[in-house]
Formats: sequence, structure tokens, C-alpha cells
Amino acid sequence: MEAVNRQYRLAARPVGLPKPDDWEYCSHPVPEPGPEEVLVRIDYLSMDPAMRGWMNDGRSYIPPVGIGEVMRSLAAGQVIESNHPALAVGDHVTGLLGVQCYATAHGGAVIKVDPTLASLPVYLGTLGMPGMTAYFGLLDIGRPQEGETVVVSGAAGAVGGVVGQIAKLKGARAVGIAGGAEKCRHVVEDLGFDAAIDYKAEDVASGLARHCPDGIDVYFDNVGGEILDAALAQLARRARVVICGAISQYNATGAMEGPSNYLSLLVNHATMTGFVVSDYGDRYAEGAAEMAGWLASGKLKSREDVAEGLESFPDTLLRLFAGENTGKLVLKVAGD
Amino acid sequence: MEAVNRQYRLAARPVGLPKPDDWEYCSHPVPEPGPEEVLVRIDYLSMDPAMRGWMNDGRSYIPPVGIGEVMRSLAAGQVIESNHPALAVGDHVTGLLGVQCYATAHGGAVIKVDPTLASLPVYLGTLGMPGMTAYFGLLDIGRPQEGETVVVSGAAGAVGGVVGQIAKLKGARAVGIAGGAEKCRHVVEDLGFDAAIDYKAEDVASGLARHCPDGIDVYFDNVGGEILDAALAQLARRARVVICGAISQYNATGAMEGPSNYLSLLVNHATMTGFVVSDYGDRYAEGAAEMAGWLASGKLKSREDVAEGLESFPDTLLRLFAGENTGKLVLKVAGD
Repeated sequence: MEAVNRQYRLAARPVGLPKPDDWEYCSHPVPEPGPEEVLVRIDYLSMDPAMRGWMNDGRSYIPPVGIGEVMRSLAAGQVIESNHPALAVGDHVTGLLGVQCYATAHGGAVIKVDPTLASLPVYLGTLGMPGMTAYFGLLDIGRPQEGETVVVSGAAGAVGGVVGQIAKLKGARAVGIAGGAEKCRHVVEDLGFDAAIDYKAEDVASGLARHCPDGIDVYFDNVGGEILDAALAQLARRARVVICGAISQYNATGAMEGPSNYLSLLVNHATMTGFVVSDYGDRYAEGAAEMAGWLASGKLKSREDVAEGLESFPDTLLRLFAGENTGKLVLKVAGD
Repeated sequence: MEAVNRQYRLAARPVGLPKPDDWEYCSHPVPEPGPEEVLVRIDYLSMDPAMRGWMNDGRSYIPPVGIGEVMRSLAAGQVIESNHPALAVGDHVTGLLGVQCYATAHGGAVIKVDPTLASLPVYLGTLGMPGMTAYFGLLDIGRPQEGETVVVSGAAGAVGGVVGQIAKLKGARAVGIAGGAEKCRHVVEDLGFDAAIDYKAEDVASGLARHCPDGIDVYFDNVGGEILDAALAQLARRARVVICGAISQYNATGAMEGPSNYLSLLVNHATMTGFVVSDYGDRYAEGAAEMAGWLASGKLKSREDVAEGLESFPDTLLRLFAGENTGKLVLKVAGD
């Protein structure tokens, strides 16, 4: 095999937003799969806010990426060599394959997907980690009831867009918070949210007061910071706050900003619960089946934002933190 | 009736700790009870951290005390006139009677208590609002399981001391956080906690690491601020954080300090739930019956800290916020 495996490795732990020097762009021979392993040609890399956390040292739900290691990333691609009985050359798979063009993985560590049912980017988005995050976070923790008001931040992102749509499917009202008129239009017109608040153009507290006259029953937070505080201030009795992420804080270089309105939990007998989607690993099949059904019937819409070229990885990742993507951000690398 | 009714009324909304000028000390004629009302001679006033919140303007779980109104307070006393069929002269009652020597109240708005079973201060403490706060907050929200580790701040206070004892009764380990060697001794030796951390003498994070090697399963928070942050950083998987109060923040004049470590909820799939005891009003009888049984059998110990004289009310209230009380702080006013 003549191809080379281009990769991004973590060269230094970023302070604030990742800088070019934090990466090492290098080429290595395409690896040989070992026993029970497959060799995958990566077609799409998934760009996820969680990647920023994986670059930090310290205890978390998974170990950090080591300095000098290939950057961790979810990805989708095609099996081009297989030493695993359950996977054949030509099969499509997703998994934690890393920011590179080729990856070996144990056959049990990847998930086989059917590209005739949905595109590979959808398997990284609505039918992948972000979709499962929305599904279990909203339904298991948020538990929206018919007629309740669900508010979600990052509403035009891969997770938020699905949260609002599932809320609607369950008979709740969905109010999104997003940055910019086009994202707000997308959320309401394309995804069917009842309303959207453009945090770049209006005061979030005023928008919430206008669109949630009876308070917020479920607040699904992807961003943290001031928007979380604004939502806490307008909780309804027995509200459920789902802490899914805090993208506003991931690149902070000072102290983490805590939600100063947290005593709203006290006066409203409300609850704030955090989770990572891997907590629901044993229920993915259940979530994926229901989500696939909704997608197939048109009840759920999926949107992807596709960037191109492995070499653009550092810049593409920054687009997430600049809030420039609408829908699931993926990086197409096949053919590189 | 020749007696006068001395009262403390709210003269101004405090900024920070209540100052002498925030109160009006005045005398009025002892009121006459109206239809279905009783006249109560107040024996003990209950000093509760929540009183500080009642002095602030703004939406909360109950309306603020109005300027010029008698300061709201729980109290215990004796019926000296009755226009209510269920209450006779000589009966003892508790209720929101206000910071004064005499109060009228609807007969249905006070609770008759039996002073032969427990003293009036106990009815304001372990068998009253603080005890019910500990009981429902710990058992309904914290839900400690046998062998789990329960940490409580304000452990030598009226709520915290009961929380740790109930945790022990349920087979959990109890670790208290309190200020000062004598409070820590009380919590361990008198109340039977497994350990106490003196936040004035040692680093709380180090103390928690030493006494909670497997992390904190239930954290019952009465104080907020840095201690809440230290506890959040050491949660066990699926921990439950009970937000009962934030006495460190009630007199803050700057912005409320939010828990900057709240993303520990995310990585640990943990939950933070707030409540006020009035949320459990329809279950008080259940809680009071079980607590009275534990008290009678000696399984639960109650401690009261009794100050004297209505005129000392402003200073006595400040003792709460200075953390000077051990056990339930009450102010004896009868005979004044």
C-alpha cells in the first residue's frame, strides 16, 4: 500500500482556544490491522465541542489525549482490510478513529452502519453521538410533558436542533437560543421550533420572558455562562435543567464561571442534572432505532455542515467554538 | 389587658448584614383576636437563615416582608385567648407569629404541640421547620443508601446536625463540615457523625479527600460558596447534591457566587436539586411522627442554643450569620 496516513497529533495542551502550534501535522505509513482489527479509511471526521475537553489534562469521564498522540475524534469510514469476523471489506463503520486518514481499530470497537439508510454525516450527527445526547438527555433527564415549555441553547447545533424537535414530537413547546438571524430562522422554519431567541441581537432574559410566560419547564444547556444564568432565573416550579455542555467556558483561561442564579433551583424545587452520552451506552440501540424511525418518516430533520480536507482540521474545529456551524459539523477527509 | 406588645418591624431593606437602622423597635397594644383567631403569647422565636431572604425585595417562594411590617418569624407560645373551636386557652402552638411578644393568628394557621413530649425549642428545631428540612431534603432528594457517604455543611446547625444523624440511621457514613473545633467535637462526639472537617482550620478539599475516599454520594448544602465548590469537585458517580441554603451568600453585597465546579455534575452524571421545606407541607405529619419516635427512643439528639430577651433580636439574628450558634438558635421572649 502506497498511501500515507496523514494525522493531527496533539503537540501541546492549549491555553484558551487551540492555536496552530498546539498541533503536529504529520505523515506515517498506513498501519496494518492486527488480530481482530480492521483498517478503516476515514471518510468524515466529527467535530464535537467535547474534543476541547479531551485536550485538557486532569480527571474527567475519559482520559485526556496524551501529548504526541493522534487527536481523538469520532469518525465514519469504510473497512478496507478486516481481520474481524463480523466486518467485511466495504462495510461502513463509525467509531473513535482519530484525526487521520486511516485508522486501525478492534472490530468490536466500531459500529457498523448502513449508508443506504442515512449518509455517513448523519451517522455522526442525528444518528450518532449528538443525536443520542439529545435523545437521552431530553427524554431521560428532561422528561418533557405535553404542553410544557422546553428551552435549549445551542439550538442550531447538532445536539440542540434535535432536542427541540424531540420536544415537539412529545407535545411540548420548543424555544431555541441561537446566535444570529439565519440560525434562528433555521431553527423555527426548518426544524419547527415554536420560537427562537437570537442571543447576539436581543437580551436573552427578555426573550425568555416573552416566549416562556409560564416559565421554563425543561432547560437543556449546551453553553453555560450568562445564558445558563438567564434560564435559571426563569425556571418554572419543578423544572429540570439538563447540563449537557458549556461551550462558552471550554476555552476560558480564567476561572470557570459558575451559575450565580443556582438558588433558583431552591425556590422552584428544581433540579439540575449533568450527563455524558456514554452513560447511556447500553441503551444506544433503543435511541437509534426510534430516531431512525423519526428520520425515515420525516418527523425529524437532520442538518449537516460539511467542511473539507484534513489539513483544514485546526480551523474547522475553531468554527465550532466561534459558533459558525449550523447543524452537525463534519470534516470530509476521504479522497485526501 | 395592660400588657404592651413589643415588636421588631422592618424599617429598611438591608444591604449586606442587617444593621440596627434596618429595624424599628416599637410598642403597640396587645391585639384582640378576631373571629376564628387566637391570641398567642410568644415564648420562643426561631432564628432561621431564611429570615435574611425574607427581608429582600423580589420574587421568591413567599413574598418579602414589607417595609413597616412586623418581621416574619417562626415562633412558639401559648394560647391566651381563643375564638377557634380547635384551640383552648393554655394550648401550646407554633407558627409564623412574627418578632413580637404577642400575636394573633387564625386557628388553622398554627400547629398545636404537646410540651410534655418535647420542649418548645425542640418544636422550633428538630421537630419543626429545620428538622423537617433535614428529613425531607435528605430522604426525599438525597436518598442515601446503606454504605454511601453523606456530607453536610453547616453540620453543627439546626438542619445539618439532623441531616448527619438521619444519614447514620439509614446506614450511611456522615461527614460534617463546621467552623471551629468545638462544633466539630459536638458533631462527632455528641451527634455521632463519622468525621467532621473544621473549615476554619483546614482545607475543605483535603478534608473531603481524606474522609471521602470513594467520593461524596450525597452532599447536603446549607452554605454555598467555596465549600459547595469543594464538595462538587469530589462527587461520586450519580451523586445527589441537595441545595437547602447558601448562608455564605445571603448577606453578599456583590454578585452571588455561583458554583464554578458545576460541570462536575456532567462528568459524574450527578444531580443538584433545590427545595424549600414548605414544598413538603402535606407530608409534615409523616416526618414529624418518625422524628418524634427517633427522639423518644434516643436515636436522634436535639440541641438548642437559647438566647434571651426580645430586645436582643437584632444581635441574636446576626449570631446565625457569624456561625456562632451550635444547634437550633432560639430567642426566649416570654416574661419580657
